[in-house]
Amino acid sequence: MAGKEDLKLLGLLVSPFVVRVRMVLSMKGVSYEYVEEDLKNKSELLLKSNPVHNKVPVLIHNGKPLCESLVIVQYVDELFPGPSILPTDPYARATARFWAAYIDDKLFPAWYGGIVKAKTEDERAEKVTETLAAIAQIEEAFAKCNEGKAFFGGDSIGYLDIVLGSFLFWFEAVRRMYGVEIISASKTPLLAAWAERFRESAEAKEVVPGADEALQFVNKFAGAAAAAK
Amino acid sequence: MAGKEDLKLLGLLVSPFVVRVRMVLSMKGVSYEYVEEDLKNKSELLLKSNPVHNKVPVLIHNGKPLCESLVIVQYVDELFPGPSILPTDPYARATARFWAAYIDDKLFPAWYGGIVKAKTEDERAEKVTETLAAIAQIEEAFAKCNEGKAFFGGDSIGYLDIVLGSFLFWFEAVRRMYGVEIISASKTPLLAAWAERFRESAEAKEVVPGADEALQFVNKFAGAAAAAK
Repeated sequence: MAGKEDLKLLGLLVSPFVVRVRMVLSMKGVSYEYVEEDLKNKSELLLKSNPVHNKVPVLIHNGKPLCESLVIVQYVDELFPGPSILPTDPYARATARFWAAYIDDKLFPAWYGGIVKAKTEDERAEKVTETLAAIAQIEEAFAKCNEGKAFFGGDSIGYLDIVLGSFLFWFEAVRRMYGVEIISASKTPLLAAWAERFRESAEAKEVVPGADEALQFVNKFAGAAAAAK
Repeated sequence: MAGKEDLKLLGLLVSPFVVRVRMVLSMKGVSYEYVEEDLKNKSELLLKSNPVHNKVPVLIHNGKPLCESLVIVQYVDELFPGPSILPTDPYARATARFWAAYIDDKLFPAWYGGIVKAKTEDERAEKVTETLAAIAQIEEAFAKCNEGKAFFGGDSIGYLDIVLGSFLFWFEAVRRMYGVEIISASKTPLLAAWAERFRESAEAKEVVPGADEALQFVNKFAGAAAAAK
């Protein structure tokens, strides 16, 4: 790693994917310039830095852009000293990568593309079922992975904690909008206790916004006719 | 790494995702037991080892299952000595991970979920456009990444070569079935030359099947009314 780093993060405060990058930079003690993007009027720098997806987060490191949150988190973890974000054991690392992909490929489309963006109540009900099935799988994985420890990463917050934890303020927004509890003490007790620990952690408190911000975003941008319950 | 390894791969010879794992194991010089799965009658071992997706490839290492080809390839790369499959430079590694995700999330659904599985000719035409747009992005990435070298990985086959190269025999099957050239000398000259080098490499020749096998699979399993052109 070079001595002097020039780091700029193009983000959106309510994006869980941006939260991931901010958490890992904060945990590594890396300072950076944060630039909030306007999704309705994306900056030239964003479009130029992520021409493939035109999406935040983009981390620009010494002039070179990095895109996609899981890629950026691994890059920051590999490059900067400080606590290991991914597990150091290769099998645990592979397991964490497996579940991170599951969270982004199965869980995220179910609750965001599904529950939040559903066009009909029937579609929403179907996506609620899909979301709850996915989270049940993750509850089971948590039981297996962490051997009774506080976090997916063991005694402290690691990769999967960041990946799933970045969704929690949105889950609360979903609960307020649609009355759906994605993580609940009755159905996913391990994750419910984990979520409480995550929310109370210094790492999360420093960068994770509240459900209010997510609700404001939905009302402003997604145009959903959702009123907080 | 432990001295004595017990490795079993549950696979399907025509699966590009299985080809990736076989290539990396072969390049690392790791010996393993290969078990061909019957997709119409999956083994108990497969269902037990990959309860989340019920899919090949699954690599079972000393009794512990690993699923998802990109996860397995990284695991094998990190654990076993031999040539580095992922780039050793962190920025190049992040770039390779970005494009691997693009290839699986954008390109694969367009040609396989799209062109091969399309229900109507209109749908197929739309997916052809999507596939060609995605491969054009990869052509551009290749020009940027490899600085005139033979492979994405530089002078020798690496991660992205394996990830994209595993699709090539299927692209040939798509050409024979639908007359669609996904990689062509006219539209993607760099990738066309790269594909030729990849196909001729010892690494590919050892494990990559031919288009005939892919066509047989389509006729047998997908029930497509496709006749080779």
